[in-house]
Amino acid sequence: MTTLSDIFNTPGARADAQDGPFSDDELRLSNRNSGTLLEMLKHDVTPTGLHYLLIHFDVPSLDTQTHTLKFGSGFGAPFSLSLDDIRALPQITMPVTLECAGNGRTAVSPRTRSMPWSYEAVGTSEWTGTLLAPLIERACPNADTVEIVFTGADRGFDKGVEHAFGRSLTLEQIASLDVLLVHEMNGQPLLPQHGAPLRIIVPGWYGMASVKWLSTIEALNQPYQGLQQVGTYRYRNHKDDPGTPVTSLRVKSLMEPPGIPDWSTRNRYLKAGPVTVAGRAWSGNGSSISKVEFNDGKRWHTAQLTPPAGRFGWTRWVCQWEAVPGEHVLSCRATDSNGDTQPLEPRWDASGFGNNAVQQVNIYVELSPRV
Amino acid sequence: MTTLSDIFNTPGARADAQDGPFSDDELRLSNRNSGTLLEMLKHDVTPTGLHYLLIHFDVPSLDTQTHTLKFGSGFGAPFSLSLDDIRALPQITMPVTLECAGNGRTAVSPRTRSMPWSYEAVGTSEWTGTLLAPLIERACPNADTVEIVFTGADRGFDKGVEHAFGRSLTLEQIASLDVLLVHEMNGQPLLPQHGAPLRIIVPGWYGMASVKWLSTIEALNQPYQGLQQVGTYRYRNHKDDPGTPVTSLRVKSLMEPPGIPDWSTRNRYLKAGPVTVAGRAWSGNGSSISKVEFNDGKRWHTAQLTPPAGRFGWTRWVCQWEAVPGEHVLSCRATDSNGDTQPLEPRWDASGFGNNAVQQVNIYVELSPRV
Repeated sequence: MTTLSDIFNTPGARADAQDGPFSDDELRLSNRNSGTLLEMLKHDVTPTGLHYLLIHFDVPSLDTQTHTLKFGSGFGAPFSLSLDDIRALPQITMPVTLECAGNGRTAVSPRTRSMPWSYEAVGTSEWTGTLLAPLIERACPNADTVEIVFTGADRGFDKGVEHAFGRSLTLEQIASLDVLLVHEMNGQPLLPQHGAPLRIIVPGWYGMASVKWLSTIEALNQPYQGLQQVGTYRYRNHKDDPGTPVTSLRVKSLMEPPGIPDWSTRNRYLKAGPVTVAGRAWSGNGSSISKVEFNDGKRWHTAQLTPPAGRFGWTRWVCQWEAVPGEHVLSCRATDSNGDTQPLEPRWDASGFGNNAVQQVNIYVELSPRV
Repeated sequence: MTTLSDIFNTPGARADAQDGPFSDDELRLSNRNSGTLLEMLKHDVTPTGLHYLLIHFDVPSLDTQTHTLKFGSGFGAPFSLSLDDIRALPQITMPVTLECAGNGRTAVSPRTRSMPWSYEAVGTSEWTGTLLAPLIERACPNADTVEIVFTGADRGFDKGVEHAFGRSLTLEQIASLDVLLVHEMNGQPLLPQHGAPLRIIVPGWYGMASVKWLSTIEALNQPYQGLQQVGTYRYRNHKDDPGTPVTSLRVKSLMEPPGIPDWSTRNRYLKAGPVTVAGRAWSGNGSSISKVEFNDGKRWHTAQLTPPAGRFGWTRWVCQWEAVPGEHVLSCRATDSNGDTQPLEPRWDASGFGNNAVQQVNIYVELSPRV
């Protein structure tokens, strides 16, 4: 009989990266996971239902009335909290920009066989909940604690290993990043696909850290060895490289593509004349956006910036452009307060993580009035 | 200089169908459009944000306060309606199952280069609005009217043709199908991506008929020649065949895949023993679901049915299965009250429309307790 490892050692996990057309596995992932629509970047808060979704396994069905968050092993004073208990704690609402660590993977060459994102795995929501750090403190982590691990109710196989999705953070990270225990998104109870009834949000980090369907919190006296911590979400030079952890968001920007689209190529069409081009920029690691430039295929133009609502939300940028007839490749490039700037070409990573290279938009500008 | 038709005659429109890996265009469409999650079939009403989306162009930004629906040419007593006007009319809420005409396209061989859906382009929402037929009557269509055309605010290119998305229906279809002018979905104002502030819902038909971002209604004295009516959404034997219109939903069923998944292949794992398998079935053309069968790889088992809420919603089916160790391919098959049954293999269509062949789920059942 076939063994579990025959069945579940996926092609994506085994195969070396390569370019070329997309596989059945990649298409299946693309049909299941969903990104935002770039024209919706105009909204400060991504409309409900258009925030990107990267769901490793199945969405679990948890009962809001009976679900409890358990502080488990490694704590001196462990306890459980119901949703009502959590709602009775001091509440904070924060706009936070989340991006999938694999966003932009398709442009990293050769390409790893995983969710083939182009640009769309980003969104900003207003998350409501309570700060996590005081709760951790209340549970009295043992003196030898080195990491806190967060485990969701979602369970499945990846690389032949059965596990519930889990991720860890240090106590210092939990406090300094304002990690939030969240039960509402955009003023409504969390939707099932966004982690209902309870998740964490780790502001400024790529999305894998913001564990959904949160069920247990434990304190560990050695680094967490969960697959999603040590076996994936690492920057690696080759597939056997242990690598370094994927953590905070790299500086990045996107534009709302101007003009109107072609259905299948998504190439754009525009009439010549003055155009307002706009979009969003964001960064992690405690930095803010200091500059965004727009390139019309000829030169860089400096965009005007609108400060974000809060430390962890994206920045709006706007630039005036005199569109002249012809074919153009438009792009935009952000720089953050740490001095980091988006690269023009994707940097190599064996898993296609953290690609923050500039976006490219193909556009055809026609004389106006049309002839 | 390159011409518009060079730019916008898309590969998808030009190329003959073929099999093999997926193209950049197909992946781009798959990243932009989104399906439901099959485990969410457990919900009678698809959770907000998980109803499938097929968006031809960009989502237009329309102002709910100022947007009006205009009854235009071809009417003897044309008028305009604001959203407040429409809310003041008699209101109906109906659960309606919508499915994209291209759902299942990837399994039709050879494959057309368009949105490469597998199974996920289906959903059921509760739509609130007012019946359209009385409004059409009030606007007094001219005596020679043969069709009513509905035009959205979404505009772009397809097959080299610039147009706003439009579709037509006959007066008889509008009345007999209970076509609804809709401003709410699941008890909330329409989301931008679902047609805000106003759309139609054509119950029992594939989704292309349910025009979003509705702006104008006109009466025509000859059949509508819009690209989305005559140039696509036709069942065709080859790409130059004028074909026949895609209209009502073909009988179909899906299951919630049992067990837990592998991240990238979506193969399933389950421990041996009794399992409840469940899913949904639906059909158009005025028919209801009369039978659903579940196949465990050995034989067909008849499922129990729960009648739908309303004429146009899906039917729930449930079947008990004794899962025995081994690899299995599970499937389900519905029959409707017209006597139509899902085929075991996809039927050929040049555009991959209307594929209602049975779903297949790969599953590995292991001895329980695990050894």
